[in-house]
Amino acid sequence: MGRDLNEVRIGIIGLGGMGANHAGMITGRQVPRMRLCAVADSRESRLAWAKENLPADVIRFTDGKELIDSGTCDAVFIATPHYQHPEYVIYVLEHGLHAISEKPAGVYTKQVREMNEAARKSDKVFAIMFNQRTNCVYRKLHEMMRSGELGALKRVNWIITDWYRTQSYYDAAGWKATWDGEGGGVLLNQCPHQLDLLQWLCGLPVRVRAFCHEAKWHDIEVEDDVTAYMEFENGATGVFVTSTGDAPGTNRLELTFETGRIICEHDRLTFDRLKVNEREFCRTEKNGFAKPEMETIEVETDGMNEQHAGVLKAFVGRILNGTPLVAEGEEGINALMLSNAMYLSSWLDRTVDLPIDEDLFLRELNKRRSASKPKSDTGIVFDTKGTY
Amino acid sequence: MGRDLNEVRIGIIGLGGMGANHAGMITGRQVPRMRLCAVADSRESRLAWAKENLPADVIRFTDGKELIDSGTCDAVFIATPHYQHPEYVIYVLEHGLHAISEKPAGVYTKQVREMNEAARKSDKVFAIMFNQRTNCVYRKLHEMMRSGELGALKRVNWIITDWYRTQSYYDAAGWKATWDGEGGGVLLNQCPHQLDLLQWLCGLPVRVRAFCHEAKWHDIEVEDDVTAYMEFENGATGVFVTSTGDAPGTNRLELTFETGRIICEHDRLTFDRLKVNEREFCRTEKNGFAKPEMETIEVETDGMNEQHAGVLKAFVGRILNGTPLVAEGEEGINALMLSNAMYLSSWLDRTVDLPIDEDLFLRELNKRRSASKPKSDTGIVFDTKGTY
Repeated sequence: MGRDLNEVRIGIIGLGGMGANHAGMITGRQVPRMRLCAVADSRESRLAWAKENLPADVIRFTDGKELIDSGTCDAVFIATPHYQHPEYVIYVLEHGLHAISEKPAGVYTKQVREMNEAARKSDKVFAIMFNQRTNCVYRKLHEMMRSGELGALKRVNWIITDWYRTQSYYDAAGWKATWDGEGGGVLLNQCPHQLDLLQWLCGLPVRVRAFCHEAKWHDIEVEDDVTAYMEFENGATGVFVTSTGDAPGTNRLELTFETGRIICEHDRLTFDRLKVNEREFCRTEKNGFAKPEMETIEVETDGMNEQHAGVLKAFVGRILNGTPLVAEGEEGINALMLSNAMYLSSWLDRTVDLPIDEDLFLRELNKRRSASKPKSDTGIVFDTKGTY
Repeated sequence: MGRDLNEVRIGIIGLGGMGANHAGMITGRQVPRMRLCAVADSRESRLAWAKENLPADVIRFTDGKELIDSGTCDAVFIATPHYQHPEYVIYVLEHGLHAISEKPAGVYTKQVREMNEAARKSDKVFAIMFNQRTNCVYRKLHEMMRSGELGALKRVNWIITDWYRTQSYYDAAGWKATWDGEGGGVLLNQCPHQLDLLQWLCGLPVRVRAFCHEAKWHDIEVEDDVTAYMEFENGATGVFVTSTGDAPGTNRLELTFETGRIICEHDRLTFDRLKVNEREFCRTEKNGFAKPEMETIEVETDGMNEQHAGVLKAFVGRILNGTPLVAEGEEGINALMLSNAMYLSSWLDRTVDLPIDEDLFLRELNKRRSASKPKSDTGIVFDTKGTY
């Protein structure tokens, strides 16, 4: 059978929970015009899993670079531990293939900057798996905020504590939740989606003060509880609260604008829309206790929420037809800048400005890496469907 | 007509919005066994208002101390600007009368400590107007938290931004929203209720980092926007977000415990109750992504919410029958300690431990008082009903 030029042959590097899930999605034909051709993992058990569960014509490699060099793929999906994302993406792009990386873009912005440099030099497509951007409520919110109809942003509070994980989650993979293996905890593993959405919607803050608590709820090295305060360029402020130890957790994004308040919770957008601009009302209203009139609107969306398949479809579309990605790979640095800033603020016990001092961050991270203790793992791979 | 020993003759010092409102409530017979006998205010316009609106037998004084000395009252309600609360309360108690003070207890803890010292030496009753403690949802929450059934507190987030005020509110009274006249903004004027409830429910935090923004939404000297991060003795953390510039605002108190989460919003208590203790579940559950089973309960309360009348009824009850107050006057220092800590943290741009260095706070406050500019006022008194 000759090669179909109207399809994208993809290889996946890394067959942990996410990689295996993506493999199943692609072989399950959930992404039209994408065909899984190869997988790579250094662990024997994961290749055995691939042999048993994936079609026989999916070639298996123990080394990701061999997969890239093999000529079997047009594009490569990087689903390795985070530290390796930039190195593999650079290798993929420099070898003339398209790249898509799992989030986060990397562990520290300095390495991601190199990756983005490689992407700029390349004419290949580079995407990142920010699947939450496909959610209709965030897309609609983005559209409303970009339209200008809401007026200036005044406040953004995101309580995103519904990332509950048990101790066995952390015990399953040796690299997880260590400074040297993973490079961070809830901010780096679970929150890249929300941090990306936050910067996508509101822009990056200019100043951050964060409090990261390590091993608060679990026997791990890294943080599992974070509260961060943010200031934006226009003076808007915000808090970002996250944890893997709260049950039940909350996912409530509240944004206050000059023209009202939008609450995004339970996949609904509720807009308390003022009939006048609050700033104008404040200056002109004679009654000290009066409040602007408002109406509450359930904002309609298109109801679509394709998640990972949506990101991969857009990736295929860009490669074959030049249509837009869900998230450009180079935008991955923004969410990482935000989490790096939160770590740095907490480590230094002071407010930090963005962009951060990337060398200082790396020195501080490396201190923690060198004190990091290797841990054994149970090797259990959990079904991750519906957990991101 | 001889004196009725089964009633409390009360005098009110300060006839601004709150004092006038209390006077109307008492003459309207909303507080059984309490009779308004005297009022005092230094402003001619307020005494004219009293002459026109209060019963003819209510004696009017231009000086609060004359009212106290007059022998016409058993108890005195202090509704003056905040700085004067301690001085008047001390004078009342030392002259053998019972005292009830509007919140806050004072402007700085050092002065309130002297007031509490006077209260300890006195055998008279000293109460404070924390009317929100009469709200059934907070009473029920207090009862549940004290019972131990909820397990340890893990997190408390209070977004209390529904204190909206227009510029005309601040322009109405010359003393308001100045460092020298009022001594603070939203933390000192609007939030003492929530700060008191917070410490009543959770205890005082041991550490606070706050960001107070002055004149952010209004032409005033003091803060009208605050975000504070708190750490409690058991390791629980929290945020407290408040503003007088958000429309609409939010009043959402979310508490996470080992056994679930309680959300207090729209005068309802919603309890997501776990079937097991989360700490135990985290350690023993084999599935990394599993979450403890739970049920959602609308917590029943007694539905009572007597507010100011409830506080005054309890004040009468203590004086005449020795029954409990809603809030002991000496507890007022706790909410003030918390707001003082928030100011100090923001002024010094660093985290502060509680109890704070009270001399340092006073020095910092006095710097702001000496730079404070007098302002004229429009003299408008707004109807404050339903605004606290």
